[in-house]
Amino acid sequence: MSQAPSDAPDPTARAAERAPLDPPPLIVDGVEINRWDREVLLEARRGGVSALHATCAVWEDARETLRALAAWRRRFAEHADLITPVRGADDIQRAHDEGRTGVLLGFQNTSPFEDDIELVATFRQLDVLCAQLTYNVQNLVGGSCFEPTDSGLTRFGEAVVAEMNRVGMLIDCSHVGEWTTRDAIEASRDPIAVTHANPRWFCDSPRNKTGETLKALAMRGGVVGCTLYPLFIGGPQVSRATYCRMIADLVDEIGVDHVAIGTDLTRGHPDEDLAWLRDGRWRRPDPEQRLSWPTWPAWFASAEDFPNLAEGLLDTGLHEAEARQILGENWLRLLGQVVGP
Amino acid sequence: MSQAPSDAPDPTARAAERAPLDPPPLIVDGVEINRWDREVLLEARRGGVSALHATCAVWEDARETLRALAAWRRRFAEHADLITPVRGADDIQRAHDEGRTGVLLGFQNTSPFEDDIELVATFRQLDVLCAQLTYNVQNLVGGSCFEPTDSGLTRFGEAVVAEMNRVGMLIDCSHVGEWTTRDAIEASRDPIAVTHANPRWFCDSPRNKTGETLKALAMRGGVVGCTLYPLFIGGPQVSRATYCRMIADLVDEIGVDHVAIGTDLTRGHPDEDLAWLRDGRWRRPDPEQRLSWPTWPAWFASAEDFPNLAEGLLDTGLHEAEARQILGENWLRLLGQVVGP
Repeated sequence: MSQAPSDAPDPTARAAERAPLDPPPLIVDGVEINRWDREVLLEARRGGVSALHATCAVWEDARETLRALAAWRRRFAEHADLITPVRGADDIQRAHDEGRTGVLLGFQNTSPFEDDIELVATFRQLDVLCAQLTYNVQNLVGGSCFEPTDSGLTRFGEAVVAEMNRVGMLIDCSHVGEWTTRDAIEASRDPIAVTHANPRWFCDSPRNKTGETLKALAMRGGVVGCTLYPLFIGGPQVSRATYCRMIADLVDEIGVDHVAIGTDLTRGHPDEDLAWLRDGRWRRPDPEQRLSWPTWPAWFASAEDFPNLAEGLLDTGLHEAEARQILGENWLRLLGQVVGP
Repeated sequence: MSQAPSDAPDPTARAAERAPLDPPPLIVDGVEINRWDREVLLEARRGGVSALHATCAVWEDARETLRALAAWRRRFAEHADLITPVRGADDIQRAHDEGRTGVLLGFQNTSPFEDDIELVATFRQLDVLCAQLTYNVQNLVGGSCFEPTDSGLTRFGEAVVAEMNRVGMLIDCSHVGEWTTRDAIEASRDPIAVTHANPRWFCDSPRNKTGETLKALAMRGGVVGCTLYPLFIGGPQVSRATYCRMIADLVDEIGVDHVAIGTDLTRGHPDEDLAWLRDGRWRRPDPEQRLSWPTWPAWFASAEDFPNLAEGLLDTGLHEAEARQILGENWLRLLGQVVGP
């Protein structure tokens, strides 16, 4: 393990000091899509994040994704004092115990599989543990939440779901169309995840899920990670109390075993990255439109604010055990079940 | 121009001798997907084929397709006595006048465009004049005729159609789902093609088109190439008279300007090629299933039999001018309109 620079405070000590729960909770973030410099990794440590799911592909094909995964190999070596690879659920507990942040590699698209059923097992062998079936457009596997029509799960999509079940890769339906999501819940042998979306009754966006879909997900043992991305909570002015009340209401609706957090943090990205992340190559950027990242709520501006969120959950009346499930233990259980120990 | 081997008969003389029309008709085959050795090119010459649309991609991505196009550059140089590239409609007339076969390069999928709107113009610059929107599965652009659900044209699909219109590339909907086909007919500024399919009332297969769709295609100036692929005519026992009667009936239904031929010849492919051509990489081959190519009707076993087909069209009562339109002039007109002179 390499040494942290001597001028850095001990981030783990700081997290423990701020945590409203004692001992500090095991925190797992359902998805983050940061630019992964050391400062961002320090934020995760300061927030007491035991593990996070890092997005390695949004539009990338197989070859481009190999490069993104290689970058993670280098990061794991370079920042071994802060992060450690997650290859199964036990690695998350180990990271938590060691005061490091486990990083679980995953995709927000099946584009790395291209049109090749064999590439699912290939990427699983490269420690990719989670893949979202579609990103922002229709793909070979199914329909996106932003597409006017949802194809449902295609024949290739059914093959991919079965193969992900076979190799032990978590299926994520966050950006996936409602119909395709329901098809995936039905088709998958294992429970599936929505790593980062809210109920649509809280914020009416196609990126959020209907109550019916979240119930169907929970009925099959799945977990939804409530997101903090400003556009899908209703804007940065939404208070911590309002957000945490939504979580408590969702717990009442689908059960505490099925609710978690997936912030969708986008730390470190300049505005120039936004056009790529949103639209990839499928349409030309509109020269009239100046894209910029949304402002995050003051009470949750980075992973450092996980203790704030924990406090908010307790303030809303959730019990300590419930807050611990929501903050990380539900993800831990689901990963153990789908991916293995 | 290189010389034909001295032992080869003059194939053009032979075609003229067998042709039931005088002067010999301009023949354009809407699609062929052969293994392109010299023998196959000689068959086209013996059949008097003035131009054919050669498939360069079915599942291939951009990089793989660049290789397929490079192979055509070599073939054009090596067999310049038999074939010549088609870059516009005038090249077809020129090939016909010179007694060579013009080869128009095209795709049976939009897979070479991958997810990148810019690649449409790139492949147009490489002389690709036609692309089928989908092959045998749902893709980024739209739904396939073999998919249980048809997404319709996606947002990327709409962008691709507009871009194909802009650069002058013919849209083909042969393997495309009915709904996506109707969307494409509507969305396209230019008339579109179904290069190789029959009316479903003649042979009930998802690969054939409903009467309504063929009418909609014709109403917008499009052309359908009736196929001779055995599975989509009802089997090799279907007689020339029955097939040509279908063509005459289709002429009555949608007008003689809108009916043509697109054989879908698969000459030279061993059985081993069939699994790739059908399913690409999207599912594993079934080890129980021994795939083999279907038998073609005795009266149309290769491009050498175009004169037989011409005779059949005349026998069914079509006038000489009508037969000429069906055999090639309709494709010539459509290409002039969409691709240019």
